[in-house]
Amino acid sequence: MSKEDLDLVKRYQKEIILLGKSKGLLEWDQLTHMPKKGINVRAEQKAYLSGLIHKKMTSDELFNAIKRLKEKKNLLDEEDNIMIKKLHRQLVKSRKLPAEFVEELSRTISLSMKAWEEARIKKDFSIFEPHLEKVIKLKRKEAEYINLPGHSYNSLLDDYEEGMTVEEILPILEKLKNDLIGIIKKIKSTDKYKKQKLVSLKKEFPREIQIEFFRDVIKRIGLDESFSRIDFSEHPCTYGIDPEDIRLTTNIRKSPLFSFGSSIHETGHGLYESGLPIKHRYDILCNAPSMGIHESQSRFWELMIGLNKPFWRFYFPKFNDKYKLNTTFDKWYEEINLIEPGNVRIETNEVFYNLHIILRFELELGLIEGKINVKDLPKIWNQKMKELIGIEPQNDVEGVLQDCHWSQGLFGYFPTYSLGTIYAAQIYNTLKKEILDIEKYIEKGDFGKISEWLKEKIHKHGTKYLAEDLIKKVCGEGLNPNALINYLNKKYSEVYGFKE
Amino acid sequence: MSKEDLDLVKRYQKEIILLGKSKGLLEWDQLTHMPKKGINVRAEQKAYLSGLIHKKMTSDELFNAIKRLKEKKNLLDEEDNIMIKKLHRQLVKSRKLPAEFVEELSRTISLSMKAWEEARIKKDFSIFEPHLEKVIKLKRKEAEYINLPGHSYNSLLDDYEEGMTVEEILPILEKLKNDLIGIIKKIKSTDKYKKQKLVSLKKEFPREIQIEFFRDVIKRIGLDESFSRIDFSEHPCTYGIDPEDIRLTTNIRKSPLFSFGSSIHETGHGLYESGLPIKHRYDILCNAPSMGIHESQSRFWELMIGLNKPFWRFYFPKFNDKYKLNTTFDKWYEEINLIEPGNVRIETNEVFYNLHIILRFELELGLIEGKINVKDLPKIWNQKMKELIGIEPQNDVEGVLQDCHWSQGLFGYFPTYSLGTIYAAQIYNTLKKEILDIEKYIEKGDFGKISEWLKEKIHKHGTKYLAEDLIKKVCGEGLNPNALINYLNKKYSEVYGFKE
Repeated sequence: MSKEDLDLVKRYQKEIILLGKSKGLLEWDQLTHMPKKGINVRAEQKAYLSGLIHKKMTSDELFNAIKRLKEKKNLLDEEDNIMIKKLHRQLVKSRKLPAEFVEELSRTISLSMKAWEEARIKKDFSIFEPHLEKVIKLKRKEAEYINLPGHSYNSLLDDYEEGMTVEEILPILEKLKNDLIGIIKKIKSTDKYKKQKLVSLKKEFPREIQIEFFRDVIKRIGLDESFSRIDFSEHPCTYGIDPEDIRLTTNIRKSPLFSFGSSIHETGHGLYESGLPIKHRYDILCNAPSMGIHESQSRFWELMIGLNKPFWRFYFPKFNDKYKLNTTFDKWYEEINLIEPGNVRIETNEVFYNLHIILRFELELGLIEGKINVKDLPKIWNQKMKELIGIEPQNDVEGVLQDCHWSQGLFGYFPTYSLGTIYAAQIYNTLKKEILDIEKYIEKGDFGKISEWLKEKIHKHGTKYLAEDLIKKVCGEGLNPNALINYLNKKYSEVYGFKE
Repeated sequence: MSKEDLDLVKRYQKEIILLGKSKGLLEWDQLTHMPKKGINVRAEQKAYLSGLIHKKMTSDELFNAIKRLKEKKNLLDEEDNIMIKKLHRQLVKSRKLPAEFVEELSRTISLSMKAWEEARIKKDFSIFEPHLEKVIKLKRKEAEYINLPGHSYNSLLDDYEEGMTVEEILPILEKLKNDLIGIIKKIKSTDKYKKQKLVSLKKEFPREIQIEFFRDVIKRIGLDESFSRIDFSEHPCTYGIDPEDIRLTTNIRKSPLFSFGSSIHETGHGLYESGLPIKHRYDILCNAPSMGIHESQSRFWELMIGLNKPFWRFYFPKFNDKYKLNTTFDKWYEEINLIEPGNVRIETNEVFYNLHIILRFELELGLIEGKINVKDLPKIWNQKMKELIGIEPQNDVEGVLQDCHWSQGLFGYFPTYSLGTIYAAQIYNTLKKEILDIEKYIEKGDFGKISEWLKEKIHKHGTKYLAEDLIKKVCGEGLNPNALINYLNKKYSEVYGFKE
C-alpha cells in the first residue's frame, strides 16, 4: 500500500514538474524569441498549464496519499521522508486557501499587473493605486488563512524563505541598515568621493566584444553549451528548465559591466540549477531551499568574485586590450567600484543595494500590518529614499513604481535579496578559509575549483535542508550580516582610503 | 442541452489545441535552440503532453457529446456542423484502434526511429530491417482496424489526405510518371544537357548575404516579424504555433539557392498558417484540409514563383550585385534550372522530384499489400531508382535509408508531396487566368497580390472543404496532373531548347 502511495506521489510530482518545465519554456520563449503578436495565444497557453498544475497540486488523491505516507516514516528511506514532509507542509499551506480566494487573487493580480504597466507609461501612480489596495487586502487575508506563528507577514515570507520569520530578520536587517549607513557616511566624507568621476566607463564598448566577454566568463564559471545557452531579454533572468537545460538571458547596455555583470549573476543562478541533484529532477528535492539561498549563488559570483581584485587581475588585461581602455589596473578597479546613490534598485551598487531592499521590506511590513495606506505610498517612499539613500526620485516610475513585485502580489519576496547577499558573504568567507589559495585560481581565470566547491557544499543537496540549516552546515553559523559588513568595510576602505 | 454539449466540445478542442501548441513550441525549440543535453527531459515532456492530448481526444465524454450534436444538425450553424462532422469522423476512426494497439505502435516507432538513425550512421540497413518489419506489420493491422472502402492503403492515406484513395491516385501518378520520363528523355537528348555544367553556382556565397536575401523574400511574400520568425535547423521546417506565431527554419549550405529556396518553400507553409481563420484558432477548422493542400502552398511559392523568370527578373540584379556573380540574366536563369538526376529526394529538382515520390508510393503499396518483403527493399529500391531516375545510390544512406518517414510509421504521407505539386500547378494556372498581369507584379518583387489571392481562395477557408472540393472550387476541376506536365514541358523546352 505505501509502495503504491509512494508511486502515486512520485507520478503526480513528475507530471506537475513536466507541466512546469513546459510552462517555463513558454515563458523563456516569450521573453526571448516570441513574435510580438504571439502573446495572444501564449497567455492562454500559460493560463491553461497553470490551471492543470493547480488542479494536480490540490488533488485529494495526492494529499491523502501524502497523509498516509507521513504516518509510515519507518517504511521510507531518508530522502523519501524529506520529500513527503516537504510536500505535506506545502499542501497543508495551500489547502488553507479556498479555491474562490485563489481565483480572486489571480484575477486581481492580472488586472493589477496591467494597471502597473499603464501607470508606468503614464507616470501616474493613481492608476495603480486601487489595484494595489485590492492586492494588499487579499495578501492580508492570505496571511490570515495561512496563519503561521508570530508576525502576520511570516505567512507570506514563508513562500520564498521557508521557516524564516520577521522576528529573526528584523534585527538583522536593522543592524545591516545602520552599518551600511555608517559605511556610506565614511565613503562620502573622503576626498576621493567628492572628486570622483567616470573616465574609462565613458568609452564605446562594441556589442560583439561584450558578447565575447560574457560568453567567456559564463563558460569559465562552468556552464557549457551542451546544457546551457544565453539569449537576450529586456531584463536578465535565468530559467532552469532542467539541470541539463539552463537558459540565461542578458542585455547589452552602454556600460560593458551591465551585460558582463548580469551574465555573471545569472550564471550563479544557472550553475546552481545545473548542480541540483539530477536523480530528483522529477521531484520536489531538485530545488533550492529558498529564494535567499538561490540569490546567494548569483550574488556570490556577481559581487564577491566578479567585482574584486583577483577576478580583475585576470580580466583587466583582456578588457584593456579589446576595449582599448588605455588605463591601469588600479584606475580601472577603482572606477568600477565607485559608489553613487541612485534611485533604481537594479542599477545600484553593492553598498547601496541592501538599503533599497530594506526600504521595501519596511514598507511591506507597514502595508501588511495596515499601518501604511496605499495612497500615502509615493510620499512615504520618497521620504524613506531621502532618509536611507540620500536622494529622492524625480517621478514615481523611478520611485514606487519601479519594481513589478507588488503588482504581482509578491509580498515577502524582497527581503530574500538581502538574505542572499548576506549568505553570499558568509559563503565567501568560508570558501577562503577552506581553500586558502583560492585567489590564485581566480587570478588565472580558473573558477572551476569554486564551482565544484559550491556544488559539493550547496547545490547537490537540493532542498534537503532548510536555508538556515544549510548555511549552518556550510558556514558554521546561521544568517549573520557581519560577514557582509566586514567585506564591504574592508573593500571600500581600500577603494576610498578611509579607516575600516 | 445542445448548448452545453457544444460548449463542452469547444472547451475540449481548445484544451487539446493549447496542449498541441505547447508541444509544438517544445519541438521547435528542440530543433533550433535547445542545448544538446536538454533532450533527456524534452522527450519526457513531449511524451507526457502527447499522452494528455490522447486522453482528451479519446474521452467518452467528448465522443458522446459529439454524437448527440451530430443528431441535431438543424440546431447548429453551418460552421459548427462542419466542425462536429469532422470531429465525429476523426474520433470514429481513432476509436477503432484499441488502446493496446496504439501503445504498441508508439513503442515500436520509438525503437524503429532509433534503429533508423543507427542504421544510417553505420550504413547498414540490416539494423533497421527487423524494426521496419514490425512497423509495417502494425500499419497493415491498423489498416484492417480502420477498414475504409477500397484498397487497404486508403485507411492510411486518409490520415494525411482525407477522402483520397489509391483508386483515384494510382492512374494519376501513373500518367505523371510516364509524362515525366518523357520530358526527361527529351531533356537528355539535347546538346545543352550533354554539355551542361555549373559556373556561377560554384562561387562563394557569404552567410550574411544569404541571410539578408532570405529575410527579404520572406517579408515580401508577406510574413512580417510581428507574427513570424526564422531560425536555423538541420532540416528546414515550419511550425504554425498559431496564425499569429509562425516559426520557420532554414539552413545555410554551399549553394545560395538552398537557404533562399527552402525559405520560400517554408514561407508558403507559414503564409498558409497565418491566413487560416483566426476566429477558429481553438478548434478543428483552423487547419488545412490535407497535407497535399498544405504542400501545394509551399511548392507553389518555391517552384512556380521562385524558380521562374518574372521572379528572377526582380532578384537576379540583386544577386548579381551582392554576390558579384558577374553573369547575365539568361545564363543565371538557365543555370539555376539545370536538371541532373540525383539520389536524394530533398536535394533534387522539380522535374525529377515526383519520380522520387512515385518510387516511394509504389514501394509503400507493395509493402502494405504484402507483395514486397522488407529484406528485399534495398535491392528493389535500387532497381527502381535505375528504372525511374536512371542512377543507382552508392549506399543505403543515399538510398532506402534517406527518409525518416517509414521509421516513424508515416505510410501514406509521401504521395501528398506529389499531390501538393500537382495542386500547385493547377493553382498557378488559375492565378494567371484570374490576374492577367500578375507577372508584372512579380517582376517588381511585389508578391502581396498573390498572397492576398491565396488567402482569399484557400487559406481563409481552413478545413471547411475537403481538398478535392477546395481545388474544384478554386480551379474548376479536381486533381489533374496536366497543369504540372504542361508547366514543366513549357519551361524546360525553353531552358533546353526542345520541342514541347
